[in-house]
Amino acid sequence: MQLIDGKAVAEQVKQEIAAEVAQMTAQGKRAPHLAAILVGHDGGSETYVANKIKACAVCGFKSSLIRFEETVSEAELLAAIDRLNRDDEVDGFIVQLPLPKHIDEQKIVEAIDYRKDVDGFHPVNVGRACIGLPSFLSATPAGILELLRRYKIETAGKHVVIIGRSNIVGKPLANLLMRKDYPGNATVTVVHSYSTDIKEQCLSADIIVCALGRPHFLKEDMVKPGATVIDVGTTRVPSTQTKSGFKLTGDVDFDAVAPKCAYITPVPGGVGPMTIVSLMKNTLLAGAKAIY
Amino acid sequence: MQLIDGKAVAEQVKQEIAAEVAQMTAQGKRAPHLAAILVGHDGGSETYVANKIKACAVCGFKSSLIRFEETVSEAELLAAIDRLNRDDEVDGFIVQLPLPKHIDEQKIVEAIDYRKDVDGFHPVNVGRACIGLPSFLSATPAGILELLRRYKIETAGKHVVIIGRSNIVGKPLANLLMRKDYPGNATVTVVHSYSTDIKEQCLSADIIVCALGRPHFLKEDMVKPGATVIDVGTTRVPSTQTKSGFKLTGDVDFDAVAPKCAYITPVPGGVGPMTIVSLMKNTLLAGAKAIY
Repeated sequence: MQLIDGKAVAEQVKQEIAAEVAQMTAQGKRAPHLAAILVGHDGGSETYVANKIKACAVCGFKSSLIRFEETVSEAELLAAIDRLNRDDEVDGFIVQLPLPKHIDEQKIVEAIDYRKDVDGFHPVNVGRACIGLPSFLSATPAGILELLRRYKIETAGKHVVIIGRSNIVGKPLANLLMRKDYPGNATVTVVHSYSTDIKEQCLSADIIVCALGRPHFLKEDMVKPGATVIDVGTTRVPSTQTKSGFKLTGDVDFDAVAPKCAYITPVPGGVGPMTIVSLMKNTLLAGAKAIY
Repeated sequence: MQLIDGKAVAEQVKQEIAAEVAQMTAQGKRAPHLAAILVGHDGGSETYVANKIKACAVCGFKSSLIRFEETVSEAELLAAIDRLNRDDEVDGFIVQLPLPKHIDEQKIVEAIDYRKDVDGFHPVNVGRACIGLPSFLSATPAGILELLRRYKIETAGKHVVIIGRSNIVGKPLANLLMRKDYPGNATVTVVHSYSTDIKEQCLSADIIVCALGRPHFLKEDMVKPGATVIDVGTTRVPSTQTKSGFKLTGDVDFDAVAPKCAYITPVPGGVGPMTIVSLMKNTLLAGAKAIY
């Protein structure tokens, strides 16, 4: 069994991006610039945004943080998005989700110019990714592809079972893994809460991607020997062993499943660190005007 | 075994649309208006467009045909699209594909205002369909959903195997059948030319959708008793028995497979007639401004 070290891969990719940025600036170009809009003071969102800004520094990007109080109106937020859309000094930007209930998230996502939508949530980017055109890929699926690539895990003709059909992981990942490319060319099955055959599907899988958010859902008797297991779950489970009082827990019963696997991602330190790296890659592409 | 009569369903849906249009015009609204751009004189394209215009008449729609010679420039075509985009009297329009080689099809598709893109090929419509937002669905997947609906074929928790991963059938249909709706909530597997397990996947399927364009690919020994089989194939095979000298042939070895099925679509007269009906439904939605 080989552990897929997402933390190490993430560090390596950031160093590669930093080298590209150094080359850009040496050629007299300005460094890519990522802006982030943060509404309110939710602890999780604060941490995510802080980590994104830290990653920008490591990559040599310029970053800006635009804060609004919880009480911001939708119109104010839309005006801020409009300013960023028109600001030639901003290559890409994100609006950290979730947003307060009085704001229509989908409206906000669609107000972002798709050419600056480095989260890859705008319908144009979702649609282009689906039909195999260059686009900003959403962070988690792109991070999983990068892990498969770095560990040279074969996907062509393999059976991939994705547990979970969310718009940000399961569905886009399914589309990517069936395209004519590497990683891709896989037989792809998506199972979810309505599926009656999850165990059978998993037992036939060469690669299982667990993205349903139920701690320890994937048990040892659901995995074929030699399979690759990618764990997207990050549920906060109460714990007396940590300072924070909780422990990030994956969807895989890791201790039991790992010995059967060819490759497996741990939680934390697997897929998690790759999501911010995907955002950094998109920002680099946006800065280089490589897609639009 | 019950035959799924696409021709009869298509007629019924057109009558339902005509009744809605009659109601619209009785209320003083104008009838929906579909425009079609046809480039050159390809026999297949001529027939498709003629059938679409005929269907418009049955539905009570206004229709317009805009013709260009094979030699039309991309700029001229884009100018025509721009005019249709800005014409308030046109609710939806299509550009009949394929286009001559000197014209960039993707550029043409993306030039169409997505709010008038009744073919559902614009990335905004593809993306919105993918994440479950209201959109113009592309014709063949929408037609298949309508057949499942009319025959009340259960999809929730069923295993659907789709053979073929094209951008206009396999991929969008997979996304639709896994969404939280009816038809939907299925375990969905997509297999294709790289898959090594097509037979095993098909044998476990409750519903098989064949969309790869290889005559008689699906054999009797690949189908579980009681399965539903949807045949999207329409290959022209030379024939001495028809006036035209060819015969439309499906991807399913119909005579051998049919006796094992709960439901099966014939070719012709199955999925084929539903594709034009899907275009009519999109035009009705466009006319009623029901989506955008």
